[in-house]
Amino acid sequence: MKIGILGYGNLGRGVENAVKQNPDVDLDVIFTRRNPNDLKINSNAKVVSTDEIENWKDKIDVLILCGGSATDLPEQTPKYAKMFNVVDSFDTHAKIPEHFKNVDDSAKETNHTAIISVGWDPGMFSLNRMYANAILPNGIDYTFWGKGVSQGHSDAIRRIEGVLDAKQYTIPVESALNAVKNGENPNLTTREKHKRECFVVLKDNADPKKVEQEIVNMPNYFADYDTTVHFITIEELKKNHSGIPHGGFVFRSGKTGANLENNHIIEYNLKLDSNPEFTSSVLIAYARAIYKMYKENNFGCKTVFDVPPAYLSAKSNEELRKTML
Amino acid sequence: MKIGILGYGNLGRGVENAVKQNPDVDLDVIFTRRNPNDLKINSNAKVVSTDEIENWKDKIDVLILCGGSATDLPEQTPKYAKMFNVVDSFDTHAKIPEHFKNVDDSAKETNHTAIISVGWDPGMFSLNRMYANAILPNGIDYTFWGKGVSQGHSDAIRRIEGVLDAKQYTIPVESALNAVKNGENPNLTTREKHKRECFVVLKDNADPKKVEQEIVNMPNYFADYDTTVHFITIEELKKNHSGIPHGGFVFRSGKTGANLENNHIIEYNLKLDSNPEFTSSVLIAYARAIYKMYKENNFGCKTVFDVPPAYLSAKSNEELRKTML
Repeated sequence: MKIGILGYGNLGRGVENAVKQNPDVDLDVIFTRRNPNDLKINSNAKVVSTDEIENWKDKIDVLILCGGSATDLPEQTPKYAKMFNVVDSFDTHAKIPEHFKNVDDSAKETNHTAIISVGWDPGMFSLNRMYANAILPNGIDYTFWGKGVSQGHSDAIRRIEGVLDAKQYTIPVESALNAVKNGENPNLTTREKHKRECFVVLKDNADPKKVEQEIVNMPNYFADYDTTVHFITIEELKKNHSGIPHGGFVFRSGKTGANLENNHIIEYNLKLDSNPEFTSSVLIAYARAIYKMYKENNFGCKTVFDVPPAYLSAKSNEELRKTML
Repeated sequence: MKIGILGYGNLGRGVENAVKQNPDVDLDVIFTRRNPNDLKINSNAKVVSTDEIENWKDKIDVLILCGGSATDLPEQTPKYAKMFNVVDSFDTHAKIPEHFKNVDDSAKETNHTAIISVGWDPGMFSLNRMYANAILPNGIDYTFWGKGVSQGHSDAIRRIEGVLDAKQYTIPVESALNAVKNGENPNLTTREKHKRECFVVLKDNADPKKVEQEIVNMPNYFADYDTTVHFITIEELKKNHSGIPHGGFVFRSGKTGANLENNHIIEYNLKLDSNPEFTSSVLIAYARAIYKMYKENNFGCKTVFDVPPAYLSAKSNEELRKTML
């Protein structure tokens, strides 16, 4: 299978690395809006300007879109679904129905297959929510995120006057996690579920008290959480906080039995050293899957809910039954 | 959707209860090899002798087979796949390819849809192994079972001379679990992964020392494990050990990155108050799924790997995208 990627940020580089672990997948081309000569890449792919993307219409099997959900993907995915089979990681939950419709129309117009919102949330977390709800209709869902770096919250801190750089970790509250694991089915407020830990580098002469107050009282981002602020040097930030780890937990706690006397807890959790590299690995598995669906003339926009699990694997159905069932 | 069940043991009763939580599913008939008049059931289903099962060929949409894997299912599933769409929970891992072939031939002969090996292991555990392997091709798998009751091990103890009754719990070794959770990727022997705890009621005049030695040295069942034996009264056994809890953990620990420098851990775990009731709940979701596949003329034998996740749900694709993606 020949793939291309559009966008060479963290996610694009993640796909480039992940391809090396999938012998049935070749990365043929990287499209960029920058000057192709300026890109230093880690593979033998061709680097091509996005202006020339149309010339590649019949040269690759799937295009993986590695842009952001705010402005890139709402425009790119419907546009390129007219030329290619496409995969994206669109993660603005509230706008998924609209995005789905736009991509579905484009893909059907030209008989292509697309899949949106692939990754871990949305993606693997969504799948686990869905499976668990189908199995235990009478139950409660819980999702916790972290421990992990929130790019949005880190950016929000960086915009504060006097801040040179910052990194924010979202952390599930241990006691809340344990209450769910123990089947106590607690009602949890925002503050009870997650806490926030910030590592902040100040500019010269900035007032730490003032910066701290601005952070912990910031509406939406921090005001509803217990937030801890640590002031550190730029060297410490680089040394100890340069990674992009993430993860989280999806639970369903549900009841069965003649008198609903039995409780069951389904838990799925991820502990990821690199958020973009894990997401990239999921993108490649789904690229493989939609290419199979495309070859079966199953066109239009899909989500993880529509894809038979075996389609993600490079192994045959027979081998999967023998080794993994 | 109208369903029937064949066999009214723990699993059959579990299906009967679980149906009540699925408004789109009706339990119309329970087939039994016993005298139908002897069955006390908890629903309005008809109770019918298995001898008359052929008369129901066009009266139900799916037949759920609730027999055992040792002798019932190898015979029943291929036989009834010629008359009905069928679901079973066949769990003899090594014989799955052979069973699949038999059921596939039967189902295709008469244009029915069947699914085998549905439940949690095989079933949800298999699915999670498969998804995780497709996402992280470079990694290690771990499966732990328990804490839960092993029927096979409990039976083995009951066959020892001097034993009146017994219950055996399979328990994952905490330190091994933690090593996997921490990404240490340990090599684990049988003894290092699970321990076994036995609650035994002796007959009058039985020799506890002798019974204990027979248990802990029993080949295959106990000799390779650290086994603890507790002697208790029949009243204690009934009061504290009458449940059928189970559960377990599926992990994949895998590497990504240019130099495989990043580790990721995918964990799925179940904590079940009632093993048969949870299995029954999975059976019903897959009964719904294969009936949809049947209506699309997608005949033959399937496994959990072949079923698009959305087919398990009573909700529309649109609703799933809106609420769970």
